[in-house]
Amino acid sequence: MKICWYDQQQLGVVVDGRVFAVSGALAALPAARYPAAPGDLLVAHLDALRAAIGRLLPGAPSKPVEEVRFLSPVANPGKIIGVPVNYADHVAEAEADQATFTDRYKGEVREQGLFLKAASSLVGQGEGVALRFPERLSHHEMELGVVIGKTAANVSEADALSYVAGYAIALDMTVRGPEDRSLRKSVDSYAVLGPWLVTADEIADPQAIDIRLSVNGEPRQHANTSAMIIGIAEQIAWASRYYTLYPGDIIMSGTCAGVGKVLPGDVMDCAIDGIGGMRVAVRAAWEPGS
Amino acid sequence: MKICWYDQQQLGVVVDGRVFAVSGALAALPAARYPAAPGDLLVAHLDALRAAIGRLLPGAPSKPVEEVRFLSPVANPGKIIGVPVNYADHVAEAEADQATFTDRYKGEVREQGLFLKAASSLVGQGEGVALRFPERLSHHEMELGVVIGKTAANVSEADALSYVAGYAIALDMTVRGPEDRSLRKSVDSYAVLGPWLVTADEIADPQAIDIRLSVNGEPRQHANTSAMIIGIAEQIAWASRYYTLYPGDIIMSGTCAGVGKVLPGDVMDCAIDGIGGMRVAVRAAWEPGS
Repeated sequence: MKICWYDQQQLGVVVDGRVFAVSGALAALPAARYPAAPGDLLVAHLDALRAAIGRLLPGAPSKPVEEVRFLSPVANPGKIIGVPVNYADHVAEAEADQATFTDRYKGEVREQGLFLKAASSLVGQGEGVALRFPERLSHHEMELGVVIGKTAANVSEADALSYVAGYAIALDMTVRGPEDRSLRKSVDSYAVLGPWLVTADEIADPQAIDIRLSVNGEPRQHANTSAMIIGIAEQIAWASRYYTLYPGDIIMSGTCAGVGKVLPGDVMDCAIDGIGGMRVAVRAAWEPGS
Repeated sequence: MKICWYDQQQLGVVVDGRVFAVSGALAALPAARYPAAPGDLLVAHLDALRAAIGRLLPGAPSKPVEEVRFLSPVANPGKIIGVPVNYADHVAEAEADQATFTDRYKGEVREQGLFLKAASSLVGQGEGVALRFPERLSHHEMELGVVIGKTAANVSEADALSYVAGYAIALDMTVRGPEDRSLRKSVDSYAVLGPWLVTADEIADPQAIDIRLSVNGEPRQHANTSAMIIGIAEQIAWASRYYTLYPGDIIMSGTCAGVGKVLPGDVMDCAIDGIGGMRVAVRAAWEPGS
């Protein structure tokens, strides 16, 4: 099932190129409370939601995906986790250009450690990326996004994939420079997830799918997820030894070679097998000091 | 006003060493919704809450603070921001011991950049710190905690302190090692905030107060916040150029010299002028692989 948030925070399900309006299915979720328990309420109750969607779908109005403004398919993530230097070809390009990538981040992924992006940086396809700091490089890093479905603490690698709710296309946008990754990668709109959440049952093997990104029609990034240095199961097991993963937590599983600069006016086209395509527009944000 | 969450998520206000039960004041908040808007609902509506507390206080039951189990005074923070190497004496101890602090983090605070701790790592005084990785060093870093009260994007340093809801004692617990800070500092329970939130009107000058920590009665850390390299106003202005700050976001404003190891069974006593004291117990968590 392909589940989305769209337009004015409506819930949708995508079938054959159309988005069906199924916000009524949200009635299957427990009432929101304050203080909220950790985790995204929808993802934590995905099975109940899917059943409710199934009941509504036959009578639901729809429109073409092209007419929809997609928001992030996870509305209230607790944390967004990144995996640095996780494809050998990206390691090579980073090591070959330390002027851009800095020598602070030498070393292989297990030594570098997972990093965090601020949840406040998350947007959907339709919101686009708003670049800050025009005097600095902002890079695209296209990745397979993994959405956690169940609370996971100290889980084994063998069990790890059973904690996945689904997958989406992810852009780990990055300002280059010497500062801590968790600052440079947390600018508002520098985490894109979309266009929808594909539930895990639709992806037979997340370690055997192609990911591609082009900018203004020019191919930039292309890899197969089989080339990850640390696979998704190991990422989940590793993360869960440090901190509890909650429903709706997002892992951006690492980028391949070909990361590069974007400028206002650029259009990024992303595609992942089994998920679909996502076109993301780049614009200028306000400038600091303005 | 000193506001707290305690015991089974009750709302309290602390007056003269007693905690008054004022959960009824939560009725002054708008109803919780899903998806939730960014920011902690209580902190976003602090003025309405304070008025409601004022009405309830004369008739509220109370008990001594010693009989209360304090939770984090921010229930649903969106992000926790850290400020590295922000006291000259701590910079000196880190540079003198690169075996412990690693050379990945050389450089002054503006070059290092702010970092993130996972919101899932946050606990209150009464929950204590559960150490993982017994074969590695876990250090205490005691700090002044700053709670954002209003949405802040690209704010000036001159205006920045007007965005502060209040202050609390913060412990930025840290596993030492080569990995990204945002991993090593995000272990469950490695962010302690408490014992209560002191509203900003009670702290005349947050840059002129003493912070102290002792472990098992032995003094370890002591500084005045006037010694910060980057003050709180600059921290807020700087952060808000990268990402929007929302009500309930927490800034841990940096630690002074004297950071050191803790072991299961240790007791950390923290004190900050104008806030009070906070005793935090250290225990062992489950061990990885167990």
